[in-house]
Amino acid sequence: MPAVHAISDNSFDTTARDAVYRAIFTRRDVRSHFRPEPLDDAVLARLLLAAHHAPSVGFMQPWNFIVIRDRERRRKVRDLFFDARRQEAETIAGDRQALYRKLKLEGILESPLNLCITCDRSRSQNSPLGRSHNPEMDLYSTVCAVQNFWLAARAEGIGVGWVSILDSGALKSLLGIPDHVVPVAYLCVGRVSEFAPVPDLETHGWGRRLPLPDLIMSEIFAGAGEESLKSAARHPSPR
Amino acid sequence: MPAVHAISDNSFDTTARDAVYRAIFTRRDVRSHFRPEPLDDAVLARLLLAAHHAPSVGFMQPWNFIVIRDRERRRKVRDLFFDARRQEAETIAGDRQALYRKLKLEGILESPLNLCITCDRSRSQNSPLGRSHNPEMDLYSTVCAVQNFWLAARAEGIGVGWVSILDSGALKSLLGIPDHVVPVAYLCVGRVSEFAPVPDLETHGWGRRLPLPDLIMSEIFAGAGEESLKSAARHPSPR
Repeated sequence: MPAVHAISDNSFDTTARDAVYRAIFTRRDVRSHFRPEPLDDAVLARLLLAAHHAPSVGFMQPWNFIVIRDRERRRKVRDLFFDARRQEAETIAGDRQALYRKLKLEGILESPLNLCITCDRSRSQNSPLGRSHNPEMDLYSTVCAVQNFWLAARAEGIGVGWVSILDSGALKSLLGIPDHVVPVAYLCVGRVSEFAPVPDLETHGWGRRLPLPDLIMSEIFAGAGEESLKSAARHPSPR
Repeated sequence: MPAVHAISDNSFDTTARDAVYRAIFTRRDVRSHFRPEPLDDAVLARLLLAAHHAPSVGFMQPWNFIVIRDRERRRKVRDLFFDARRQEAETIAGDRQALYRKLKLEGILESPLNLCITCDRSRSQNSPLGRSHNPEMDLYSTVCAVQNFWLAARAEGIGVGWVSILDSGALKSLLGIPDHVVPVAYLCVGRVSEFAPVPDLETHGWGRRLPLPDLIMSEIFAGAGEESLKSAARHPSPR
């Protein structure tokens, strides 16, 4: 009775489990292939609900979601991107600058909407559970919300790209974000004509996927890692 | 021909999409209900592979995964937790201290393994794409890996709890983590007898889920939010 077994051990059945892995493995940081049609409110609300169900330190739920559609405002954000990219290009190693300048790193205007996910650092003033020693945990909680949004979007066929080449102070001014709130992620969101089979930065030779076994350690940092686990990580079993 | 439609718009079919939402909505920050049996290497390798497929700024993949099983080492980590909780309790508002002290906030010894997910801040020294203006992006990438791990674990029936009440410096000493590496998340991982229907902190009256519509803004921070979207967020449509 596989169904009973599936319930008793709390795991999903194989089809459902594969779907979760599929969202994780086929999610992309999308900069190209956006289609212009707007998203239904019902779909966008589901994605935001997914974000809102992220874990948060002390159940703080520090996030807000600013939906940005106005083209003039987005054009200003894209100008911020252009400025920041120009500055960043100068910090890139000489032999990689030409490649850097060719990369497509945002879809601010091509996507039908932008979403800024923020972290209100004052939301748990009265009950900072879990933040005394690690005050950055509220920012991390907000990142978990971003990743929930991203994976739900993949399942809905919606592309998401995170634009981090922006001056935060300038972005805060443009979006009227007060001092105690941090714009954690600026996302481009929309339906796409396709999801790339591998990350763009891999396709364009910027980087390669590191071998997972090399990243696994045991007991302490630089601990060699268990051979049986590293072997399993080298050839992950079909689910 | 719904199958063809599903392919052409890149979305998952309804069953698969529901599975992704189910992982998101039923994931819990687990502190109780851990069962002691060890995890198969094959399962743990899949979870780590899911983590390794997180987005990362400039395809930096800054993470490492330290698998900690030794009970003596874990006992020392739990001692760090006890110290940190005692300190944190003193910062909690008077009327909430008794509740705070009653909360179960870790499963370090009850779970069969602990996992520290770290961020190596030096990994992209030669190509800091996307970090000139927001150097914390590597930490955020690592958090995305944590959330991937957490959701894949939920689908596998495995509970995960993030312990943030720890002194980072002391944890680094205990795990031999060098200066340029940040221990982003210390996780308790294992099979569970059940997943709680709602977050523990909600059950125990520490906090309540905020209404999603109140968190949605439009165009700028404190922008009122689009009524149609807020309405959809109030009553999310069945998928």
